[in-house]
Amino acid sequence: MLHILALFSFLLVSSSHAALQDFCVADFTAPQGPTGYSCRTPAEVTADDFVYSGLRQPGNTSSIFNASINSASVHKFPVLNGLGVSVARADVAPGGVLPLHTHPGATEIILVARGAVTAGLISSDNTVYVKTVEEGDIMVFPQGLLHFLVNTGGTEALIWVSFSSPSPGLQVLNTALFGNNLDSDLLEKITLLGDDEVQRLKGIFGGTG
Amino acid sequence: MLHILALFSFLLVSSSHAALQDFCVADFTAPQGPTGYSCRTPAEVTADDFVYSGLRQPGNTSSIFNASINSASVHKFPVLNGLGVSVARADVAPGGVLPLHTHPGATEIILVARGAVTAGLISSDNTVYVKTVEEGDIMVFPQGLLHFLVNTGGTEALIWVSFSSPSPGLQVLNTALFGNNLDSDLLEKITLLGDDEVQRLKGIFGGTG
Amino acid sequence: MLHILALFSFLLVSSSHAALQDFCVADFTAPQGPTGYSCRTPAEVTADDFVYSGLRQPGNTSSIFNASINSASVHKFPVLNGLGVSVARADVAPGGVLPLHTHPGATEIILVARGAVTAGLISSDNTVYVKTVEEGDIMVFPQGLLHFLVNTGGTEALIWVSFSSPSPGLQVLNTALFGNNLDSDLLEKITLLGDDEVQRLKGIFGGTG
Amino acid sequence: MLHILALFSFLLVSSSHAALQDFCVADFTAPQGPTGYSCRTPAEVTADDFVYSGLRQPGNTSSIFNASINSASVHKFPVLNGLGVSVARADVAPGGVLPLHTHPGATEIILVARGAVTAGLISSDNTVYVKTVEEGDIMVFPQGLLHFLVNTGGTEALIWVSFSSPSPGLQVLNTALFGNNLDSDLLEKITLLGDDEVQRLKGIFGGTG
Amino acid sequence: MLHILALFSFLLVSSSHAALQDFCVADFTAPQGPTGYSCRTPAEVTADDFVYSGLRQPGNTSSIFNASINSASVHKFPVLNGLGVSVARADVAPGGVLPLHTHPGATEIILVARGAVTAGLISSDNTVYVKTVEEGDIMVFPQGLLHFLVNTGGTEALIWVSFSSPSPGLQVLNTALFGNNLDSDLLEKITLLGDDEVQRLKGIFGGTG
Amino acid sequence: MLHILALFSFLLVSSSHAALQDFCVADFTAPQGPTGYSCRTPAEVTADDFVYSGLRQPGNTSSIFNASINSASVHKFPVLNGLGVSVARADVAPGGVLPLHTHPGATEIILVARGAVTAGLISSDNTVYVKTVEEGDIMVFPQGLLHFLVNTGGTEALIWVSFSSPSPGLQVLNTALFGNNLDSDLLEKITLLGDDEVQRLKGIFGGTG
Repeated sequence: MLHILALFSFLLVSSSHAALQDFCVADFTAPQGPTGYSCRTPAEVTADDFVYSGLRQPGNTSSIFNASINSASVHKFPVLNGLGVSVARADVAPGGVLPLHTHPGATEIILVARGAVTAGLISSDNTVYVKTVEEGDIMVFPQGLLHFLVNTGGTEALIWVSFSSPSPGLQVLNTALFGNNLDSDLLEKITLLGDDEVQRLKGIFGGTG
Repeated sequence: MLHILALFSFLLVSSSHAALQDFCVADFTAPQGPTGYSCRTPAEVTADDFVYSGLRQPGNTSSIFNASINSASVHKFPVLNGLGVSVARADVAPGGVLPLHTHPGATEIILVARGAVTAGLISSDNTVYVKTVEEGDIMVFPQGLLHFLVNTGGTEALIWVSFSSPSPGLQVLNTALFGNNLDSDLLEKITLLGDDEVQRLKGIFGGTG
Repeated sequence: MLHILALFSFLLVSSSHAALQDFCVADFTAPQGPTGYSCRTPAEVTADDFVYSGLRQPGNTSSIFNASINSASVHKFPVLNGLGVSVARADVAPGGVLPLHTHPGATEIILVARGAVTAGLISSDNTVYVKTVEEGDIMVFPQGLLHFLVNTGGTEALIWVSFSSPSPGLQVLNTALFGNNLDSDLLEKITLLGDDEVQRLKGIFGGTG
Repeated sequence: MLHILALFSFLLVSSSHAALQDFCVADFTAPQGPTGYSCRTPAEVTADDFVYSGLRQPGNTSSIFNASINSASVHKFPVLNGLGVSVARADVAPGGVLPLHTHPGATEIILVARGAVTAGLISSDNTVYVKTVEEGDIMVFPQGLLHFLVNTGGTEALIWVSFSSPSPGLQVLNTALFGNNLDSDLLEKITLLGDDEVQRLKGIFGGTG
Repeated sequence: MLHILALFSFLLVSSSHAALQDFCVADFTAPQGPTGYSCRTPAEVTADDFVYSGLRQPGNTSSIFNASINSASVHKFPVLNGLGVSVARADVAPGGVLPLHTHPGATEIILVARGAVTAGLISSDNTVYVKTVEEGDIMVFPQGLLHFLVNTGGTEALIWVSFSSPSPGLQVLNTALFGNNLDSDLLEKITLLGDDEVQRLKGIFGGTG
Repeated sequence: MLHILALFSFLLVSSSHAALQDFCVADFTAPQGPTGYSCRTPAEVTADDFVYSGLRQPGNTSSIFNASINSASVHKFPVLNGLGVSVARADVAPGGVLPLHTHPGATEIILVARGAVTAGLISSDNTVYVKTVEEGDIMVFPQGLLHFLVNTGGTEALIWVSFSSPSPGLQVLNTALFGNNLDSDLLEKITLLGDDEVQRLKGIFGGTG
């Protein structure tokens, strides 16, 4: 019996160290580096840390785009720190829209759990790829490319989203252009948009300048 | 007008090359390397390549484990080549099981779309993390660790799975041990399982030796 | 003397193989994978392959944006295949513009070799960072984020650009939106741009639909 | 002479910073992130930090498996932090066994320094690859796959092990299944092992539940 | 209007977190890990952090090699932390030299902004690749290989350098061999250099031992 | 029984594809990319492919340095393709030397299996780290840095080497400088070595020019 312990005392010691590498639950109170947050001590990690219930409920779709997104990225679900994947849910009312946007750091797969949507992406050579996808279909948006989605199915749509990063980032074109203090003259020069249009959209998205 | 073309002839030339890097749809007829398959010519890629409909239907759960898995990995959905993410669907009858297994090359997130399951993972220091998760919950299984799932909800369960790789791999314990020609004496030495048990399970999983 | 050969015959054999890993000059006639092109045989590589003279001359800036870009990415300079870096030159006439764009796969550093420019980027939380930079200054645009540049210096500007990838990609907002066959109704839904504006810009950038 | 200093003052300043990247000796008192530990100040690092003597002695092989493993992973040899490689020694008595296990985060090469062993691995498609290897031979176990080793040489075996990670992790099947509090009913469901066998092995490996 | 806020309150919350991943400006007062420094809080980052003016002036070339290098690596330009690229400027007087050296962690591209130089690299199989490059030309030195540059153009040369790393490292052969306390006997054994030559060069580069 | 087949037909199909990712045995007749060689069809791979016997015998140490190296890199042991690790053996006669060299693409661990050696490395800030290491000791040389080894133990030494790459590369200072056609004038300018010394060493290492 002592012999068993002899081997396993090694195995346990070795493994308890190695466990630090099995996962690295984010400790938001410690420094963050370019590849992720610091890790909590494994001894503090419990089964609860592996589960997230924040996606159970549909979001409120009574916004300008009649849509809502709720993402379980590492900032909300810290066990994902360093693990290379995250998920989100999108609820889109009939006619609702996920407006043109990019994820600077992740590829995305959408899965249509309920309803039907028309979705598309634009590649670096300006080609547009648009498809209407139905319940059970999946569609891919490669990293960093502009993409969008419109609920064309006539019913509330539920979309499950998978990202190739625990922190995919999000740059929505409308708020990036019209939701900040970017000088209007400058904005018009770098987009060729007219001033009337810029002022109208700044009005909608809260921009100044 | 010629001036416009002057600039955009550059942009288009440059971009049409760059598009090779936007995505790399797998060409299964050309050589494969350690990081993925060769790419199809972008000119052959259409919107259809970005969409996969093979997960629409539930799988047949009348197997020994009363469960089925259907994965949209790069081998079936070639646009995922090199993109760092894939998805799958699991259908599990009441009482059904996804037996103990690992994915050698990917972290996994499960999303319970319908039903309730008891799922768990085992870390390198032999700690077990088990939770019962319900509709709308997600749970994480870090790369390379043993994990499992049992439908404890009383109804057919539908699980959407996200992986941090287009080709996560799959090593099911039962078939790895009992579904091949691994010599029984050797198997018993390296697992301490008894010969009766080994023969019984080889009978179920088709093993010889 | 034979002894010397004994050791170096090893070293040479070993090294001639290892040299395959020193660099991998792209062979555009062989398959490409997600991480780059196939390699030419090292024996065919000469000193000329390490040098590129295509950036010597200023580009023609008489385009709609009064600017031109010439990039030495892997598609033109094949020794960069797999090496993680590339460069480009931008020539911008007084008042000229590099319009709003992203590089889906690379961080960028600009170096103002001649003149002065006002440049900026927009982060994921819609913050705008704008600066006027002068001769000898450098400025950074992190991967995947929208950025732009206007020649505000009154003289022709020469900008040297460094990318963190041999193939950074390029998505110019104007051509991505207005230079293809993206359906106008759809475009207006996903950007909230007005139809007049969309038609006007499609006219400029050659879009249809 | 001043001229020399002029150049080298640059070189030294620049290099003393760059040295932070030459190596990153782990500081176990500072936070750990997903890619490794924090670094000690280079000024505190001495030649002793590059050397480890903890593998000099054979381990005690009088355990249940008649084998012992001693690994020089980053947790014991902190200079390996971030460097992508580690080593270990295994001592295996005649007839002794390294039982079925995986390393979730590393490929392994064994080198038979003394004796002879029968070793094997199981791939994702359940194929078994078994070989008897002798003094001076090496054998490879790709990342994340089940593998094992039995001393079939009639003498004490000494095995040197190389890993593709400073922290390869270790999941031993017997202790993962039978050395914790995993509920026996659940365990039997997800492995199809019989209850008698489970109880017998929990007795050996100290499991409860 | 409230509806707009409903959507954008999500977008803003989500994005303000995601912004942590857009960039990670180095905080030199917090721990460093193997992949970079800790990040400053995004709220403290301003437009000034994206710009560096330290390369505006030529360096002093009155050193032994009649050359100077000034690098904008992460240690001086902290926004580069984790971003995979950096730049430097080299000023080389007529006849001046950048002596034989390696960058252990980066590929390098030189761009001849003014003058002409003869530059070369040596590959693992001891092949030498030498070229004379002129104004506007670029030349590549793959990661880890010995390379050098001589100003053969008769005028002061200005070279802009791009690296595939924010911290490329630098190992200059002369100072690595002759600028430290490496024992002379040992040095002669491992290089076959004669003692007279070693003592002469230790005299120049300040070596002892 | 059919039910079992139903599940496993999936598992087998899925796994047989996934097995392509378990390992990628190099096919030297197909194209190579920047991250490795093309893969052989898994069906052609046998247990023999996982084993290499080429390191069994000591090398011939009667060379100028009284040492020999034999490496099991991917070029000789194709299963290592893409797997991130390789090994080598060095035999060093009493007084023999592994002369100053770098591996451009790998960190190295040496393990002294027999004898004793004095080994060292030089960091980017020109610091020398030297140690005498004995039987059973290991020592680390981080990626890209100059290092060396002298047999100071009075007996033949056997060294096992582990690399963090299947193809570490090798740049030996003596042959890189004196074993090719690098012009002597140029060599003297970029190293400050005297002409007599250069000619003497070119004589030994077969250099011309």
